[in-house]
Amino acid sequence: MKKKTRLMRPQRKVGMMPGSLIIDPSWPEPTIHVMAYGPDALEEKTVESVRELEAFVGKWPVTWINVNGLGSEETLRQLGAMFDLHPLALEDVVSLRQRSKVDDYDSTLYTAMRMLSFHEGRLSGEQVSFFLGKKFVLTFQEIEGDCLDPVRERIRARAGRIRSAGPDYLLYALIDSIVDAYFPVLEAYDVRLENLEEDVLGRPDNTTRSQLFEIKHDLTRLRRTLWPVREMAGALAHSESKLITQPTLVYLRDCQDHAVQLLELAESYRETGSSLMDFYLSSISNRMNEIMKVLTIIGSIFIPLTFIAGVYGMNFDNMPELHTKNGYFVAMTVMILLGLGMFAWFIHKGWLAPPRKPRQE
Amino acid sequence: MKKKTRLMRPQRKVGMMPGSLIIDPSWPEPTIHVMAYGPDALEEKTVESVRELEAFVGKWPVTWINVNGLGSEETLRQLGAMFDLHPLALEDVVSLRQRSKVDDYDSTLYTAMRMLSFHEGRLSGEQVSFFLGKKFVLTFQEIEGDCLDPVRERIRARAGRIRSAGPDYLLYALIDSIVDAYFPVLEAYDVRLENLEEDVLGRPDNTTRSQLFEIKHDLTRLRRTLWPVREMAGALAHSESKLITQPTLVYLRDCQDHAVQLLELAESYRETGSSLMDFYLSSISNRMNEIMKVLTIIGSIFIPLTFIAGVYGMNFDNMPELHTKNGYFVAMTVMILLGLGMFAWFIHKGWLAPPRKPRQE
Amino acid sequence: MKKKTRLMRPQRKVGMMPGSLIIDPSWPEPTIHVMAYGPDALEEKTVESVRELEAFVGKWPVTWINVNGLGSEETLRQLGAMFDLHPLALEDVVSLRQRSKVDDYDSTLYTAMRMLSFHEGRLSGEQVSFFLGKKFVLTFQEIEGDCLDPVRERIRARAGRIRSAGPDYLLYALIDSIVDAYFPVLEAYDVRLENLEEDVLGRPDNTTRSQLFEIKHDLTRLRRTLWPVREMAGALAHSESKLITQPTLVYLRDCQDHAVQLLELAESYRETGSSLMDFYLSSISNRMNEIMKVLTIIGSIFIPLTFIAGVYGMNFDNMPELHTKNGYFVAMTVMILLGLGMFAWFIHKGWLAPPRKPRQE
Amino acid sequence: MKKKTRLMRPQRKVGMMPGSLIIDPSWPEPTIHVMAYGPDALEEKTVESVRELEAFVGKWPVTWINVNGLGSEETLRQLGAMFDLHPLALEDVVSLRQRSKVDDYDSTLYTAMRMLSFHEGRLSGEQVSFFLGKKFVLTFQEIEGDCLDPVRERIRARAGRIRSAGPDYLLYALIDSIVDAYFPVLEAYDVRLENLEEDVLGRPDNTTRSQLFEIKHDLTRLRRTLWPVREMAGALAHSESKLITQPTLVYLRDCQDHAVQLLELAESYRETGSSLMDFYLSSISNRMNEIMKVLTIIGSIFIPLTFIAGVYGMNFDNMPELHTKNGYFVAMTVMILLGLGMFAWFIHKGWLAPPRKPRQE
Amino acid sequence: MKKKTRLMRPQRKVGMMPGSLIIDPSWPEPTIHVMAYGPDALEEKTVESVRELEAFVGKWPVTWINVNGLGSEETLRQLGAMFDLHPLALEDVVSLRQRSKVDDYDSTLYTAMRMLSFHEGRLSGEQVSFFLGKKFVLTFQEIEGDCLDPVRERIRARAGRIRSAGPDYLLYALIDSIVDAYFPVLEAYDVRLENLEEDVLGRPDNTTRSQLFEIKHDLTRLRRTLWPVREMAGALAHSESKLITQPTLVYLRDCQDHAVQLLELAESYRETGSSLMDFYLSSISNRMNEIMKVLTIIGSIFIPLTFIAGVYGMNFDNMPELHTKNGYFVAMTVMILLGLGMFAWFIHKGWLAPPRKPRQE
Repeated sequence: MKKKTRLMRPQRKVGMMPGSLIIDPSWPEPTIHVMAYGPDALEEKTVESVRELEAFVGKWPVTWINVNGLGSEETLRQLGAMFDLHPLALEDVVSLRQRSKVDDYDSTLYTAMRMLSFHEGRLSGEQVSFFLGKKFVLTFQEIEGDCLDPVRERIRARAGRIRSAGPDYLLYALIDSIVDAYFPVLEAYDVRLENLEEDVLGRPDNTTRSQLFEIKHDLTRLRRTLWPVREMAGALAHSESKLITQPTLVYLRDCQDHAVQLLELAESYRETGSSLMDFYLSSISNRMNEIMKVLTIIGSIFIPLTFIAGVYGMNFDNMPELHTKNGYFVAMTVMILLGLGMFAWFIHKGWLAPPRKPRQE
Repeated sequence: MKKKTRLMRPQRKVGMMPGSLIIDPSWPEPTIHVMAYGPDALEEKTVESVRELEAFVGKWPVTWINVNGLGSEETLRQLGAMFDLHPLALEDVVSLRQRSKVDDYDSTLYTAMRMLSFHEGRLSGEQVSFFLGKKFVLTFQEIEGDCLDPVRERIRARAGRIRSAGPDYLLYALIDSIVDAYFPVLEAYDVRLENLEEDVLGRPDNTTRSQLFEIKHDLTRLRRTLWPVREMAGALAHSESKLITQPTLVYLRDCQDHAVQLLELAESYRETGSSLMDFYLSSISNRMNEIMKVLTIIGSIFIPLTFIAGVYGMNFDNMPELHTKNGYFVAMTVMILLGLGMFAWFIHKGWLAPPRKPRQE
Repeated sequence: MKKKTRLMRPQRKVGMMPGSLIIDPSWPEPTIHVMAYGPDALEEKTVESVRELEAFVGKWPVTWINVNGLGSEETLRQLGAMFDLHPLALEDVVSLRQRSKVDDYDSTLYTAMRMLSFHEGRLSGEQVSFFLGKKFVLTFQEIEGDCLDPVRERIRARAGRIRSAGPDYLLYALIDSIVDAYFPVLEAYDVRLENLEEDVLGRPDNTTRSQLFEIKHDLTRLRRTLWPVREMAGALAHSESKLITQPTLVYLRDCQDHAVQLLELAESYRETGSSLMDFYLSSISNRMNEIMKVLTIIGSIFIPLTFIAGVYGMNFDNMPELHTKNGYFVAMTVMILLGLGMFAWFIHKGWLAPPRKPRQE
Repeated sequence: MKKKTRLMRPQRKVGMMPGSLIIDPSWPEPTIHVMAYGPDALEEKTVESVRELEAFVGKWPVTWINVNGLGSEETLRQLGAMFDLHPLALEDVVSLRQRSKVDDYDSTLYTAMRMLSFHEGRLSGEQVSFFLGKKFVLTFQEIEGDCLDPVRERIRARAGRIRSAGPDYLLYALIDSIVDAYFPVLEAYDVRLENLEEDVLGRPDNTTRSQLFEIKHDLTRLRRTLWPVREMAGALAHSESKLITQPTLVYLRDCQDHAVQLLELAESYRETGSSLMDFYLSSISNRMNEIMKVLTIIGSIFIPLTFIAGVYGMNFDNMPELHTKNGYFVAMTVMILLGLGMFAWFIHKGWLAPPRKPRQE
Repeated sequence: MKKKTRLMRPQRKVGMMPGSLIIDPSWPEPTIHVMAYGPDALEEKTVESVRELEAFVGKWPVTWINVNGLGSEETLRQLGAMFDLHPLALEDVVSLRQRSKVDDYDSTLYTAMRMLSFHEGRLSGEQVSFFLGKKFVLTFQEIEGDCLDPVRERIRARAGRIRSAGPDYLLYALIDSIVDAYFPVLEAYDVRLENLEEDVLGRPDNTTRSQLFEIKHDLTRLRRTLWPVREMAGALAHSESKLITQPTLVYLRDCQDHAVQLLELAESYRETGSSLMDFYLSSISNRMNEIMKVLTIIGSIFIPLTFIAGVYGMNFDNMPELHTKNGYFVAMTVMILLGLGMFAWFIHKGWLAPPRKPRQE
């Protein structure tokens, strides 16, 4: 909980025109990479201008245009015009805090997804946008990422159906690779929970509590991110868009299954986290109670003894016990017996059970 | 939590006739502003009487009549008659505690929305009502507000589709500008939560708790307000009213997306608030426990020592130790050793871990 | 929480025949009041026997028969026979703990509603039953109430549509007036919550806790009562009964809106109550902790000092300090310095922050 | 919570054939009672063998065969063959831990219900099974019960519609009488809650806590039992089986209403129970805090005084105060004033508010 | 909570091709067992190669091929080719952390189920996969298990309908036997809960808390496992696949009933667990409070007495009481009376109620 990540960067000004593209000056310039392929051929190129794309789109069974960096309004507008993208969809591409979703604009299908990864030990999210058209897939990434590389490799290697299938299957492959990328993130939390569990069962210290709160907070956020991913995958799997063919729907349903699995994992980790927290809090309170009890028992034994000592420290002239020969020894014996008696009574009552021994001792 | 805002001002008397308009004498007199436009022309005017509106309505592709202030029953009745508004909708216009909603009265579509803003650091709400007719949009605001101004500017500037589109697109633009106005409100809570988090992790004081309760209360209220906004946006986006054209539905769906996003933000802030509260409470209880432990340990060390001192303060005649040469020094040594021994034992048991160091020290 | 109101009076014996009417001997005798009207004429009468009703029913566009008191099985049976009421509906009329509901028995539409009001500061409920027939509305009240009077007045005054509309509009007007009567009840809780909030923020005493529990209990009950009211209003607003005409459905939808608003208010008050309770409990525990801390600090400062005093109260023969000239003054200085040192240390640690000052001091 | 009732008796062995009948040897032998009737005639008989039933079934408009005791597989198999019962339904008859449910096997309609009653102060459940056929109703009870007797009486007395109606109405009458039997059970909990409330508000003792937990546990179980009863009643009320006639559906809907009412009562008692528990726990903690506070205040007043006394008990040679004439009296006065001063300060701070007076004192 | 079981073994690499089979080298080699039967004949064989299966499939009314061990990709691929299994389904067979589910691939119906059992006192899960084809059922188990044996026995013994029914009934019989296998697992938790309850009501020790947390954790996991089982059973019972015949659907509905029952049992145990935990925590806190109260009372009685003794230990020259004859005895009497008085006052206030007697003493 050291530094809360901003969930929203409110770039829109109130009352701004729909379809406005607000470009942050710090964003990197877009680089455009094309991959055009059919069952038998493949052409790859990094193009300089949007114009060059005309040589590919529509001429190949599938053209995949990947745009890294959103830093140029002009490029985006040109792409929008060339591919007939709806202005609202284009606005969503640069609104970086979208929930994962699918919008069906008849001629194209727009999909937004959040990609999660760890940056310096903290969860960080990136938005990826997909447009599926009749013969193309257009993808936008905030920054150069590597999670789409495996798909690129599969296209180059002609692995599986990908080269013979249409753009809808490419869309599936891309989305599936992003969904798959969530699993290692969840696994990392699994490991952290296991470590925390060891701490909690062993000798928890002050950082344990912060860590428990932090992990619970992260897992809540993870669930919030995964929930719309599941909805999105479900919407795709049951899409009625004519851009998605029947055989691909089977694959998208599998992808939906994975999203459901992810959500359930996140839920189950969250519950484990809550349960650890409860166990930690009850351990702490238990331990504190034991300490206070022991301390109070020490006081309770010596306070009455001190009283007796005080009595024989009084300066009355006429205190017969003071002048007997064994008075002192008798008094000492009485005090010791009284102390031991109280001790025995506390033990008998079960009040002096030793505090819980931490396992590692 | 200094002053709870009233959520209801029960102006209706029990059994009152439906369609009754209860006007609060303190409300400002209505001022009526007209904006009539088509793709090529625009006319603006602040009219004195409802009659003057006849020159606009129906004669222009779109006429937008904005009424600021609800202080005249007569004006409202005249408007109702001129635009054929249902008496129940008119009653809702002046029932200022409506939930956001859409009512489809065939010839007109009535929409009520709550607008939130900060007044002197406290959330305050205002109701805005919209009537969409065949060639007009009629809006009612409690008081002069500025959140519809950007739309006015866009009309004047011929920005985007607004001048060429119909009244349904104007309705969308107005509703969208109000939905957009929620984002800065939520951002303000984001900032407050971040500040509170710093306080909680640092050295929380007595106002922290009140602030946590207050922010949680506000965020609960925000969620209550946003929930019907989402429902309303959804109802509009899937409306079957013939007053809303197909292309506008796409925009309304985008607006619904924003409403969902708002609701999720509010939910996520609320969870962050609850989590901060839990962390704060457990910090406080932790700190208090540590303090009490240290204090009790001080007592537990000195009470037995005091007992020993008491023993040698007794006035028995026959106490041999008193008369040895080094009795005093032996007794002092024993007492110091006993004290140190107990101290060492407490440290060994891990009971004397120093209280959590606040990070900023 | 002084006296729990019984939620159920189980008058039915197990296995009793359906349609049995169990009349409590303490119930008042029914008095029957008729109001028959059309657009132009109105006749009112308090009839002695059910027979007299034949002169009205069917002869006027709308006949409203109101029965106060359910103390006569014979009268109920006669009414049932005359208006062709289903025996199960008639049984529901005298089963006074019904949930609000609508039952469509083709020839008549039965509606049961709970009416809430305050009796001597406590919530008390009464059941009102409505039968809508082709040309009549038949209402049953447990005891003479005044919440239907405004409707009576409107009929007499020819206010609004009521005289020209049919019996379905009368049913709406009656139900609406009962829904309206919930608002003042909720407002009363709003006021109580505000007063309690002042108490909680100020100097809460022992009754605060009981009041918080009581108000929370009441608001839970209120929500339980309002939930079926909302369902009932929804069922009416979307009824497909041929007894309800299209224009009246618009009004019933408005009534449903009010029921939803009531439910949300009740929910929001309940949340405010819970939040106040949490704040109260955390205040109390805070205050108690502060008190205990201060008391323990007093002890922790004086116990070590007492030990030093005890040392120099020992009676060893050879205690050189005792015989120095300034020994006493040195010892006193040491003790005072030690006391002040501990005090300073506690302040430095932030342990001695003064307890929260209640605002009104 | 003395003894948890087993919710499941897992008689089935894993992988057992569907339709297996596992008969517990301790179950009583079945006795079969027949009641055959039409509008004008009635014949009752306790038969010895299943064969004898052939004289009744199909020859009378309605034949009701009631089987008490499930201790003979052969009898059950014979009945199954004679009435064409599905083997799975027959298996359910002897699987005594069924949820209440309706299964439509075309030729017969199977209904299972749980009946609750108190046995020696503890909730105990029994399963009743119903088969509705074209001209018969077949009921199975674990042991001889009396809750179906009122229906038997009504048949004998020709009360209401029962003699002229078909077997579907008989089914309704039987189910209704079992639903009715839940009301006294709930009422018993109502009374227990009221008694507990008096205890909690008065002087709660150690059994109060156990009783609160026990009643909460029971009410949770009750809700679990009632939930499927409501579902079952709803399924019957909206059944499309051709065995149930239109007029009976109206009665079944009434029965569903009662089930909903039961469920809401159980819910509301459960909430009352939770609320009482919270109040009890907060009372206890309040009281404990008050006691600890008073005790700590006693210590805090006397510890500093003891220190002063200790000072003048020191044996320094040069302690001028000791030798003044009024030294003792001055010291005593100072000590008394200090004690009173601290006491006054504590009262001024509001720390010494007397502990909550229990109402009955 | 000693060792958390991993819920996920993320074998898939990000971006891996759909349909990839990742085989863990530690998995056992598959052994294939065939059982082919019709109403009159049965042939069983353990085959060495997939080729041998050709002699069975399609030649018998029903062929059941059971594969134990998933350690050979080649075998799986061969089976996939022979039975026309979808690559995604085959991938699911080796993805061992599937939720229970049904996928309808037209020519085959894929069902995945989790089987739970105890291994050395800890819950452990195994995945079983089923393919239903036109004339065959194909099952995959991680390791040799015995829970399908009873079905094998029934086939051999011609028990019930199984030999005369088709492969869909076999699928039902297999799934039903796995569902049945959950009951003993749940019963084991029932027994553990009962034992824990005895501990909690008796003299709970430090392991009680860990056990309560562990059982709660397990039951949460159980519920998570059972939830998809219920969904799966429901999907089968309402399946529209042409591979499942009408009469089998009745049996599948019965199986769904059992799944619902299981889920409700798990829920009810979880609630019992939570309730025990609450009771345990409140017992512990109660007991601790009683102990601290008694100890504090001991201190509170002796601290004032010690003060009095201290007073008469002062060394003032002029202390008249010291020199009276009975001063000492008067002082002692006063101290004893004061002690007894305080004791009596504490008893009168009800502060000294003896701590709760554990029942077994």
